[in-house]
Amino acid sequence: MNSAPASTQNFRAIDVIRKKRDGAELSNAEIQFLVNAYTLGEIPDYQVSAWLMAVVLRGMTRAETAALTDSMLHSGEVLDLSSLPAKKVDKHSTGGVGDKTSLVLAPLAAAAGVTVPMISGRGLGHTGGTLDKLEAIPGFNVNLTVTQFRRILQICGCAMIGQTAEIAPADRKLYALRDVTGTVESPNLICASIMSKKLAEGIDGLVLDVKTGSGAFMKSENDATFLAELMVETGERMGKEVVALITDMDQPLGKMVGNALEVVEVVEVLRGEGPEDLRKLCLELAGWMLYLGGVADSVSQGKKRSERLIASGEALDKFRQMVELQGGDPRTIDDPKKLPQAQHTTTIYAVKNGHVASVQCEQVGTACVILGGGRERKEDTVDAAVGIVLHKKVGDAVYIGEPMATVHYNAEARAERAKQMIEQSYRIEDSPPEKRPLIHKVIGKSGEKN
Amino acid sequence: MNSAPASTQNFRAIDVIRKKRDGAELSNAEIQFLVNAYTLGEIPDYQVSAWLMAVVLRGMTRAETAALTDSMLHSGEVLDLSSLPAKKVDKHSTGGVGDKTSLVLAPLAAAAGVTVPMISGRGLGHTGGTLDKLEAIPGFNVNLTVTQFRRILQICGCAMIGQTAEIAPADRKLYALRDVTGTVESPNLICASIMSKKLAEGIDGLVLDVKTGSGAFMKSENDATFLAELMVETGERMGKEVVALITDMDQPLGKMVGNALEVVEVVEVLRGEGPEDLRKLCLELAGWMLYLGGVADSVSQGKKRSERLIASGEALDKFRQMVELQGGDPRTIDDPKKLPQAQHTTTIYAVKNGHVASVQCEQVGTACVILGGGRERKEDTVDAAVGIVLHKKVGDAVYIGEPMATVHYNAEARAERAKQMIEQSYRIEDSPPEKRPLIHKVIGKSGEKN
Repeated sequence: MNSAPASTQNFRAIDVIRKKRDGAELSNAEIQFLVNAYTLGEIPDYQVSAWLMAVVLRGMTRAETAALTDSMLHSGEVLDLSSLPAKKVDKHSTGGVGDKTSLVLAPLAAAAGVTVPMISGRGLGHTGGTLDKLEAIPGFNVNLTVTQFRRILQICGCAMIGQTAEIAPADRKLYALRDVTGTVESPNLICASIMSKKLAEGIDGLVLDVKTGSGAFMKSENDATFLAELMVETGERMGKEVVALITDMDQPLGKMVGNALEVVEVVEVLRGEGPEDLRKLCLELAGWMLYLGGVADSVSQGKKRSERLIASGEALDKFRQMVELQGGDPRTIDDPKKLPQAQHTTTIYAVKNGHVASVQCEQVGTACVILGGGRERKEDTVDAAVGIVLHKKVGDAVYIGEPMATVHYNAEARAERAKQMIEQSYRIEDSPPEKRPLIHKVIGKSGEKN
Repeated sequence: MNSAPASTQNFRAIDVIRKKRDGAELSNAEIQFLVNAYTLGEIPDYQVSAWLMAVVLRGMTRAETAALTDSMLHSGEVLDLSSLPAKKVDKHSTGGVGDKTSLVLAPLAAAAGVTVPMISGRGLGHTGGTLDKLEAIPGFNVNLTVTQFRRILQICGCAMIGQTAEIAPADRKLYALRDVTGTVESPNLICASIMSKKLAEGIDGLVLDVKTGSGAFMKSENDATFLAELMVETGERMGKEVVALITDMDQPLGKMVGNALEVVEVVEVLRGEGPEDLRKLCLELAGWMLYLGGVADSVSQGKKRSERLIASGEALDKFRQMVELQGGDPRTIDDPKKLPQAQHTTTIYAVKNGHVASVQCEQVGTACVILGGGRERKEDTVDAAVGIVLHKKVGDAVYIGEPMATVHYNAEARAERAKQMIEQSYRIEDSPPEKRPLIHKVIGKSGEKN
């Protein structure tokens, strides 16, 4: 068990570990050495996990975080999309329950003339994942080569794929190690993981949707703000236009939770329908994407333009085009019955009069995982058909006997557990609760919002 | 890279890591699970190193430290010396330069009727090791079986060996990992490492010599005191009589540094000669060993008894007997020329008048390593003959041209570097420095000192 120094550098892993342990700031070169040598297999896992724990407990400066992001970004391929004339803008969410905005935003921004090269992830734990939702559409292929990705972007203006082996390999290796060593929960490491992957897409601008509330990884607004500021500054240090919206995830977003169900709701929003919170958040994020993409002079103009693109059907047409180009069955867009359907449904009814005071968001997400709609471990497969439709959301009045939520399921035993979980996640009180804002705050690009 | 839980327990390593990361106190069962599963190879290095870093940065309570010590102790064999009627007492030093007290104390306490089952270590870094010193005696065998060890203890009352594979295997595995992951410097981990090995000797009492000063691992008296208190409390929680002396290691102990040279000085002390600081510390520690060993009613009585055993030659006879029983050449005791001799010597002379203000202790230790008398890596072999004789110690008056130190060497190039290092380690000033005490304080067994 020797701490063999990476042959190409004058650093030793043990010294970098000790320096961070003692709370000192690491130089760019030290961070680069550690990331590169680890990616090349020249530093063992046990040294890097000790370093990661030191980072979790000692923190990192903004400069260190930027250096880590940069090293991870350059551990692999950085897409060069300069041959595409339009500005490239992506959106990233820190993850939540019922968060299907990506599927709305990619075609919506593309319909406005922005190029959206979106590389997304899968669901893990109680949160859903964009790739799982897309794969609910029969035939949809998220595993494109870079050449295919580029071609579809050229034709359609948007494409949505999974992370390729070439993109930020250091992140993949570090994330796997963090997952099993209790070192996930560090804003610096989370920032570097997200930003290294997003900046590898060759984008000009990035809209970050940082969730806060009971269904978010960052439960408190303060933690969400800290992460948002870190990501915005890291992106700006690397010459990108970045804005972060702190948005509410104290209850599921929209009414549908579950992969195929969420596609149905995406289509509703693209038709100008759908639940108000989801529609409002999509327009807000789209406004920013159009503004950063240079096709709107302000965020409010971007929002108005987005509303028009929905009303005219152009946004939905763009979604249909993307689905078809990526091998998906475009008939599912107009006929949701062609999406996977669960065999059974069961409904939860209100047992008292009052108002919905809260919906324990993480529990709803976990209920969906129990139904088979998410994964507890990476290797789990996902049942696209199952999920939950929430008929009542926070603030809604409810009367005894009214339907609260409907569970779509394929296995009886799982449905029972999920149903109990959803029942328990609703809290009904006499008077309506104080309303939480949907958009808590905006970080970065200040003063340019309207 | 899965965090497979140890099959026999209801714990998961990841949960124990997270709990310590978040600053919570671990239960005995959680600590026992981690140590046992790691020793059995059921938890990978990368999880344990993350946990170790969390321990370094979050600390441990006294109860956790005791639980860790206990788990490490019981990861292997605990010697049962109950068939030997006398009380079993050992002494342990945290390591220093020129610290050869163990070689004096084992025979001295045994001559008084205490059984001393001493399991020691080798030198690493700038500090010397008892086993290396013993092996300077031609033929001396430190690798005894437990049966041989027990037999010699029965005949002679003392025996000195190296750690066997059966003693605290968890410590060996954890120490190797700590060494390469920047997690050595934790008083809790140091305490558990030392105490688990010492308590595996089947002792009733333990005298700890915790060094402080420029040549010690704990440079500050506060750090030394913290560690000493932790070790005393841990030993007491496990039903042992433990005392810790915080002693000075701001300059080398005695005048000789180097394995064979230190054996010469040991014999001097056992003859009632030798340098004052070494003789005084040996008597102090021996006083405590005799007191804990139940052969003296007080420490001062123990010291007086020890002086008499030296004056009568009984202590030296005991050393000669132990050397012979362990295969060493007993003639070396009476004729130091039979010990390994370096081929050359070179002397450093004073270049100005004044008083020795300080001797950079770690530098003198490092000079000895450079000569070949210690090891930079565990696999290095040691030249028993080389070393340094310090003619001048802190407070001594020096005159231009007087010999300050003599270097005993076998390789010219090494001698030059070592000589420069020793020259630089001496600081000469006009007036003598304030005297540092040899014994800074005593922790534990309070009020029973005299």
